[in-house]
Amino acid sequence: MRIGELSRRTGVPVPTIKYYVREGLLPAGRLTSPNQASYDDAHERRLRLIRALLEVGGLKVAAVAAVLAAIDDPGRSVHKVLGAATDRIVPRYGDSAQDEELEAAREEVSELIGRRGWRVDHDNPAAEALAGALAALEGVGHGEFTGLLDDYADAAEQVAGVDIAYVGRWAGRDDVVERAVIGTVLGDAVFASLRRLAHVDVSARAFGDEGGRPAD
Amino acid sequence: MRIGELSRRTGVPVPTIKYYVREGLLPAGRLTSPNQASYDDAHERRLRLIRALLEVGGLKVAAVAAVLAAIDDPGRSVHKVLGAATDRIVPRYGDSAQDEELEAAREEVSELIGRRGWRVDHDNPAAEALAGALAALEGVGHGEFTGLLDDYADAAEQVAGVDIAYVGRWAGRDDVVERAVIGTVLGDAVFASLRRLAHVDVSARAFGDEGGRPAD
Repeated sequence: MRIGELSRRTGVPVPTIKYYVREGLLPAGRLTSPNQASYDDAHERRLRLIRALLEVGGLKVAAVAAVLAAIDDPGRSVHKVLGAATDRIVPRYGDSAQDEELEAAREEVSELIGRRGWRVDHDNPAAEALAGALAALEGVGHGEFTGLLDDYADAAEQVAGVDIAYVGRWAGRDDVVERAVIGTVLGDAVFASLRRLAHVDVSARAFGDEGGRPAD
Repeated sequence: MRIGELSRRTGVPVPTIKYYVREGLLPAGRLTSPNQASYDDAHERRLRLIRALLEVGGLKVAAVAAVLAAIDDPGRSVHKVLGAATDRIVPRYGDSAQDEELEAAREEVSELIGRRGWRVDHDNPAAEALAGALAALEGVGHGEFTGLLDDYADAAEQVAGVDIAYVGRWAGRDDVVERAVIGTVLGDAVFASLRRLAHVDVSARAFGDEGGRPAD
């Protein structure tokens, strides 16, 4: 298909598509004449992936490039590629945390990893992100929140198990990695939204004025 | 305390503190002389809350102002204030989703809310955010992910129950609301990090090269 058709199908403006090609996010089309290129379904699918990572995942262009490079690297095991790709989409927290709070939080995370028996390096970016979030909680006087960690971890294990079972349904290595990346980013969004909906429901039951009325 | 001491205790630079006062996020200090103001523990606590919402929650200054206004409004029920505050911290997804995908996703969310028996308006911002995320999944060819929705909802209910039990431990209305806001924002961060750690673990078991070695 021509670039105009690719744009129409995906809703991405032509100049934006050209920008992604220049930045190396999207492979160039196959030249069919000196100034005309042809795109196929693989381009369309890659373009949708880029948009999902940018818009729903909130990633920066450089992070998207790194994730795509990991997906496209044939020399790594699936587990390694999953790590390389998802390490890029770990949010950063707790930049303003005091050093001592961060140290204590890291200790707490290490203990948690040990207690759960998780096969995770203690300097994994997600472990660091968790320590940052816990340090931030401590910083605003909510250190007690740490008491919920194992309940949260139970739920996280449950969701992760479902995620991996879903990802593992695909046979191809590329598919597994792409789907893991999409699932990681969009799964966060899905879970965060569901958690808020569940909050509204339990809040209506705990603090609502009337009994049976739907609450907003 | 003087503004310098408030800055030292919280790590927030003096000009930034003054900016928050100008923007109405932080109440002005009590004037002790024509050009000197005194701040107390309430200022320190509010300042930490502002930083947490901005840095960990990723909120914009205007959204922080709206959340704080909801916390400070004495005329609303706890349930209403929780709604007003947390509606502001719902992320937006799926802006690029096609209309028909979004419509189908909204339908799916409505069905889910009915199936779970959640006391939630179908036009709640979190329901809209969930529809956006599902539409984005559909847009990148992962519509099947919807099959995981109830597993996700189970986990979300579990976490929300723990959250509200935690929030409900405090007697004061202000405390309940502040803690709900902090818990909502930082709880997202905690859960997302834990989910990634659990992914690494299940991926190591499913796709890892060696058996017992910690994986990264």
